[in-house]
Amino acid sequence: MALPDDERARPADAVTANLDADGKELMLDRLLDYLAQPSVSATGEGFPAATHRAVREMKLAGLETRVIDTPGRPAVFGHRAGPAGTPTVLIYGHYDVQPAGPLALWHTEPFVPVIREGRIWGRGTGDNKGQHFAHLQALRLLLETDGGYPCCVKFILDGEEELGSPHLAALVTDNAGLLAADVVIWSDGPVHASGRWCVVHGVRGALAVRLTCRGASRPLHSGNFGNVVANPAWTLVSALASMRDKAGRVVIEGFYDDVPPVPAADEAAYAEMPLDLARVLADAGVAEMDPAHGELDYYHRLGAIPTLTINGIETGDLKRTIIPNEATARLDVRLVSGQDPARVLAAIETHIAKVAPDAEVTAEMGMPASRTPLDNQFTPLLAGAIAAVTGEPPLLVPALGGTLPDYVWTSILGAASLGLPMANIDEANHGPNENLEVDRYLTGIAISMSVLRALAAQPAGAPS
Amino acid sequence: MALPDDERARPADAVTANLDADGKELMLDRLLDYLAQPSVSATGEGFPAATHRAVREMKLAGLETRVIDTPGRPAVFGHRAGPAGTPTVLIYGHYDVQPAGPLALWHTEPFVPVIREGRIWGRGTGDNKGQHFAHLQALRLLLETDGGYPCCVKFILDGEEELGSPHLAALVTDNAGLLAADVVIWSDGPVHASGRWCVVHGVRGALAVRLTCRGASRPLHSGNFGNVVANPAWTLVSALASMRDKAGRVVIEGFYDDVPPVPAADEAAYAEMPLDLARVLADAGVAEMDPAHGELDYYHRLGAIPTLTINGIETGDLKRTIIPNEATARLDVRLVSGQDPARVLAAIETHIAKVAPDAEVTAEMGMPASRTPLDNQFTPLLAGAIAAVTGEPPLLVPALGGTLPDYVWTSILGAASLGLPMANIDEANHGPNENLEVDRYLTGIAISMSVLRALAAQPAGAPS
Repeated sequence: MALPDDERARPADAVTANLDADGKELMLDRLLDYLAQPSVSATGEGFPAATHRAVREMKLAGLETRVIDTPGRPAVFGHRAGPAGTPTVLIYGHYDVQPAGPLALWHTEPFVPVIREGRIWGRGTGDNKGQHFAHLQALRLLLETDGGYPCCVKFILDGEEELGSPHLAALVTDNAGLLAADVVIWSDGPVHASGRWCVVHGVRGALAVRLTCRGASRPLHSGNFGNVVANPAWTLVSALASMRDKAGRVVIEGFYDDVPPVPAADEAAYAEMPLDLARVLADAGVAEMDPAHGELDYYHRLGAIPTLTINGIETGDLKRTIIPNEATARLDVRLVSGQDPARVLAAIETHIAKVAPDAEVTAEMGMPASRTPLDNQFTPLLAGAIAAVTGEPPLLVPALGGTLPDYVWTSILGAASLGLPMANIDEANHGPNENLEVDRYLTGIAISMSVLRALAAQPAGAPS
Repeated sequence: MALPDDERARPADAVTANLDADGKELMLDRLLDYLAQPSVSATGEGFPAATHRAVREMKLAGLETRVIDTPGRPAVFGHRAGPAGTPTVLIYGHYDVQPAGPLALWHTEPFVPVIREGRIWGRGTGDNKGQHFAHLQALRLLLETDGGYPCCVKFILDGEEELGSPHLAALVTDNAGLLAADVVIWSDGPVHASGRWCVVHGVRGALAVRLTCRGASRPLHSGNFGNVVANPAWTLVSALASMRDKAGRVVIEGFYDDVPPVPAADEAAYAEMPLDLARVLADAGVAEMDPAHGELDYYHRLGAIPTLTINGIETGDLKRTIIPNEATARLDVRLVSGQDPARVLAAIETHIAKVAPDAEVTAEMGMPASRTPLDNQFTPLLAGAIAAVTGEPPLLVPALGGTLPDYVWTSILGAASLGLPMANIDEANHGPNENLEVDRYLTGIAISMSVLRALAAQPAGAPS
């Protein structure tokens, strides 16, 4: 076997990822070097070198690698067949990072990664380089030890995830054959707040809209024009208030259509998930949960129903005694699986047409939820593989909370998609002092190896 | 008679203000020189020289003058008795000006006044130096010609009008004896939109409040906290929307209490006031008047009822899919005579306590309306005096539109207070290229002389 151009010694015990001190140091040194390459998709900092670097790391892991161009930042794709009859796993990650943000708030340089107090500090540690690099190192260790992978592996690194992956859906549609897989595994975001490893079975979708009400051609003196010229701020607050009843339930006709009942497996999962509600509320600085959904517990609020959130309202400054000439609200909806963003948008438009016919509704973003049933065939394999490394079964998490473009795998590719987040809950992704616990990174490598071996037991279904 | 230190020749025909070319030039030269002295109360630019200059101009007009200190910019007061038994008129103006604002938008230097195309251009031309200087020149002409004034005159120049006259009420209360007068005359703002001179019988009051709803201790991710943590923006829009019914009528209990029926004299005045509604609407860039008050015509909307205006709403920017942690609206109320700002504030507070108990209501400003009945004894004298100069009776305008601290004269001093605005409607006060038509300034001098003479016919009532 022709090893790639890395002259450092192979770590002992790599086969089980029971790395010795040298092996751990090697895994960390490689990550630090990878993290030092900036790759800010929003500004272009580090491009195109960052793409080349991703290609190199995938090649080092043994993957046959190519760049897939998009109208924005390119994606990087690699694949390598496993033994005949083994299933194909597609691992998804992203090699772009958020801008570093205000340097004054960083304790160390964002692109000079360092290890301190058991954590790796730097932009991209948790989001997402540390996580997909753990998978790449697992592949590399498997290749070095066994001379091949236990199953067929495809790997795609998005170059625009921090921009909302604007071209990913088209890329997946155009390359559905290339990407076809039995199961997609992605590692992003933190583990459960309790610290437990978990397997995530989807994400909520999202829809963002702007609602704009217009009045006069300029702000007007409230004394000279009050009562004479209509105020778009009144129109806006009335239109917004009309979207909910007094209990806080959304009364936009059709808003809750297509919201399915919670499957029994999800109910069971909710019941098993630990919750320190007092800590959640204290962290948010509130005394109680939103009274608007009194009948629902914490996890049902995050997973069983959609949200309707006013993100903000703008009218111009508050300094003058004027009638504003424009008032805009931005709202977002977190969609559950089964809801079509276009249908929910239409419901909002129809509602606004009734209550504020002159208001303008502009859709900013729409992305369906993704859902992989908890009783799919891969989850037990992953759960067992994780437990084999950590000694504890992972939490099985139904789709809840935030939004990722995970639907491209479940809806466009038609694959099961399972999340295996590795970061500590306080990874500070997107913020200053982003970090990843050393132990989680090293355990992530071991878990990835364990998972790939376990998946080999599953018969192949997708073309490889 | 000892003339003040002005070596220039007295204009011919000054007694009637039928000024010849030299006389007009003198009146204009003096004003240009006065305007060149900056007096920006907000920044302090030109102070204390501006106060000394106001003292000097009042002394030149023959007034015994003193500075009245306040915790902010000083006021300047002067007085001179007229013949025994004549009434006392107090003339109110302000020597401070607005900041010049963006110099790039000025066609000439704001404090290098020039005359072009029949107008004087510069900061303070219309607001308010050109107007109170016309009165000062009228006094000076009367003094030069007749050796005295036709009636007792008091003159006060506010140094903080552009800051909202924060210390005027206390000053008037503390100096009620000094300021006592039969009638107050103020010249500020423009004549009627039609160009007609007018006598203004009061102004609406104002109340400004902030309504703040608070949520979490920081903005929260709408996916991770939506439905879990209450959104103060929903609370705010619901609270605001609850203030009006569907027709746009304010439903805050007690809001319309104390709104008196329109007096017959005001009804008659409304009916006589010209209106080019199409022009008003075109200027505002709207197709129709606010449907919320369909039963009221233009002047009744501006004078007969109070307003409730949302000046603006703020929650933070609209860029992120977050739950804002704070949402604030600022509202102002334009009050009609008879309404107590404190009572209206209490009505708003009571309403908010019912609909949004955790919201905070903060009063920013409260000032009652002023009203001098149209059938007071001075109006016919002023109207006649104006008609004698212009050949046309002035419009009699009930209290409507904006707000000035005119209540200090009607409520604290207990005097009639009549507005005699001189500026052209497009004076651009507060904006760049502020200006005053030369003819209006010169006519203003003549009208002031005519008015002071006419008032002499009225028996004295107040201590002089």
